[in-house]
Amino acid sequence: MLQNMELAHIPTPAAVVDLDRLEANAERLAAKARRLGVRLRPHIKTHKSVAAARIQTRGQFGGITVSTLAEATAFAEAGFADITYAIPVPTTRLHECAELTRRLRSFHLLLDQRETLAALENYARGHQTRFSAYLKVDCGLHRAGVDPSSDAAVELAAAIDASPAVDFRGILTHAGQAYRARSRDEAAGVAAAERDVMIRFAHRLRTHGVDVHEVSIGSTPTMVAVDHLDGITEIRPGNYLFFDVFQSAVGSCDLDEVAFSVLATVIGVYQKRRQMVVDAGALALSKDPGPVHVDPDCGFGVVTTVGQQRPVAGLTLVSLSQEHGVIEAEGELDPEWRPGTRFRVLPNHSCLSAACFDRCHVVRGTEIVDEWETVRGW
Amino acid sequence: MLQNMELAHIPTPAAVVDLDRLEANAERLAAKARRLGVRLRPHIKTHKSVAAARIQTRGQFGGITVSTLAEATAFAEAGFADITYAIPVPTTRLHECAELTRRLRSFHLLLDQRETLAALENYARGHQTRFSAYLKVDCGLHRAGVDPSSDAAVELAAAIDASPAVDFRGILTHAGQAYRARSRDEAAGVAAAERDVMIRFAHRLRTHGVDVHEVSIGSTPTMVAVDHLDGITEIRPGNYLFFDVFQSAVGSCDLDEVAFSVLATVIGVYQKRRQMVVDAGALALSKDPGPVHVDPDCGFGVVTTVGQQRPVAGLTLVSLSQEHGVIEAEGELDPEWRPGTRFRVLPNHSCLSAACFDRCHVVRGTEIVDEWETVRGW
Repeated sequence: MLQNMELAHIPTPAAVVDLDRLEANAERLAAKARRLGVRLRPHIKTHKSVAAARIQTRGQFGGITVSTLAEATAFAEAGFADITYAIPVPTTRLHECAELTRRLRSFHLLLDQRETLAALENYARGHQTRFSAYLKVDCGLHRAGVDPSSDAAVELAAAIDASPAVDFRGILTHAGQAYRARSRDEAAGVAAAERDVMIRFAHRLRTHGVDVHEVSIGSTPTMVAVDHLDGITEIRPGNYLFFDVFQSAVGSCDLDEVAFSVLATVIGVYQKRRQMVVDAGALALSKDPGPVHVDPDCGFGVVTTVGQQRPVAGLTLVSLSQEHGVIEAEGELDPEWRPGTRFRVLPNHSCLSAACFDRCHVVRGTEIVDEWETVRGW
Repeated sequence: MLQNMELAHIPTPAAVVDLDRLEANAERLAAKARRLGVRLRPHIKTHKSVAAARIQTRGQFGGITVSTLAEATAFAEAGFADITYAIPVPTTRLHECAELTRRLRSFHLLLDQRETLAALENYARGHQTRFSAYLKVDCGLHRAGVDPSSDAAVELAAAIDASPAVDFRGILTHAGQAYRARSRDEAAGVAAAERDVMIRFAHRLRTHGVDVHEVSIGSTPTMVAVDHLDGITEIRPGNYLFFDVFQSAVGSCDLDEVAFSVLATVIGVYQKRRQMVVDAGALALSKDPGPVHVDPDCGFGVVTTVGQQRPVAGLTLVSLSQEHGVIEAEGELDPEWRPGTRFRVLPNHSCLSAACFDRCHVVRGTEIVDEWETVRGW
């Protein structure tokens, strides 16, 4: 535990959370959810930290979204009682899901396949249990989910609604295609589509006699950009708590709102090729290529100063190997930069970078005030 | 502990090590080192597992290479007594290095900067200690290391050799540029350059009166491809124990020699777009883009069968998000593929994928015979 220490003195690479920025990010989105009249069920996969989720759910109804059963289990142990497991449920892990269903006030699954419904029914029959599930809808990402314009989608919803094995919770989508936006305006367009596709589909299901309790949507770019949420009951953004370089490129935030960074130390200075090597590589920052659709030369993160987190003009993190990061300068290297100099790197994708670490150092300014453990594995 | 279980029955995503392949990979490289008359100091950063390192060092002198102080500490605890810490030593962590120097029979550092030497000297004076260090040489990768054709390189070597704070161990390089090769022949060219640059530089240092004990080189592509190693004393490949899709593309191995895979389960089948979603995403496979210089459409890993690990013709892992992998088929999806179906994915970069997991399941065929823990953090 490195509490009361300064960032200047801790071992690197280190994951650093700026608590002022994080609290502001949490409050901004919470206020928007209140204003637009929806419940906020934040996705905690970005940080996988109980302490962060407590801040994120302050003044909310307390529900969260998770991406792994390991997260569900750890957050259940920490007292979170209403959890949505937001990947299509693997039929090979129904026993764990049944355990969580028994244990929690609410544990919701996602499904979009006939065969998965059959597996849930088969399990429920054998074990006298009943699951709660959303129908996962594809609103344009084309990763998972039913096509909401298809008859098959209505038929599957009706089958879930009628199933004795499942409490049909409603419909759920994630407009991940918002990450292809180039601005907040473009993200707003995706947000409107995400919302409207779901409102129309909910209406269609209701006209077919299917009882749609929840209409759940949300990604960070769309929830930042969206103008109204009439007809939507809950939103599930996650990244907004940390933000990152990608989010700034698609218009979700400014760089000075990014609350997660990786502290790195210079281990080599190479004047001739105007490069420095730092001790943060792919295992600290991830190989996420970042918003190359907006800026092909974005590199692997934005290099900032330790104290103010001001981007250092002219520096690009041009390559990453396992434990090395190579920073290149446009002009001459500053003679102040030498072995031992530190930078904070804002990662391209904070979810993937944070997951590299077992714990985050939480700071006010540059003083460490807390340490947050993160959940690992699946 | 899932020993005696079958791969069909364990939770996914899971890291799987094929012990037969791994042992064959270990023996092949060890035999080559013996034949070429060099010592093998394997890099353990690929697997970060004590059990794997024990197999890798069987019949060898016992020295290993590590990429983090966390690895050094864990392997020291496990009884490894001769360790090279193969990134330019961070001047902020000399206390830990001094501890390891006291504790181990041999603990070697790397440096390539005047300022780092000054920091070592400063520390050594204050703490009555003496470090062992290699001079890190740039043989063409242009990441870290001195330019061996420069006068500055000779001057720094002489300064280290003359320093009371440091036992000058010799010179060390890593020809990471071999990963840009398109075949084993091209890798052989890089290997010859790596070797010859170092032999010439060692000779030049000796003519300047610098005592060069070790001439240490090595990457997996160059050590697989190299024809002779006269003048070299030790080699430090690491990836060869696992191999991966990238290594097969640069000619280091065949796909049926890859000993590390990620077991994944289908959670969605989407006939219309000829896609499946599996539960192995970027947090299981890493976002390493793979050998795009050889095959721009390589995707994020090779999808193989669970039992024989035969690549499934026509399947490409086209995208990864945090916990989803999308597999696309050239033609129709096989009706046998449904929720619950399993595949083994050979990752693009096994070092980055293995580091996603806290443990590996070790198999003979499809039966789990052991579980190996991996070292985390720095």
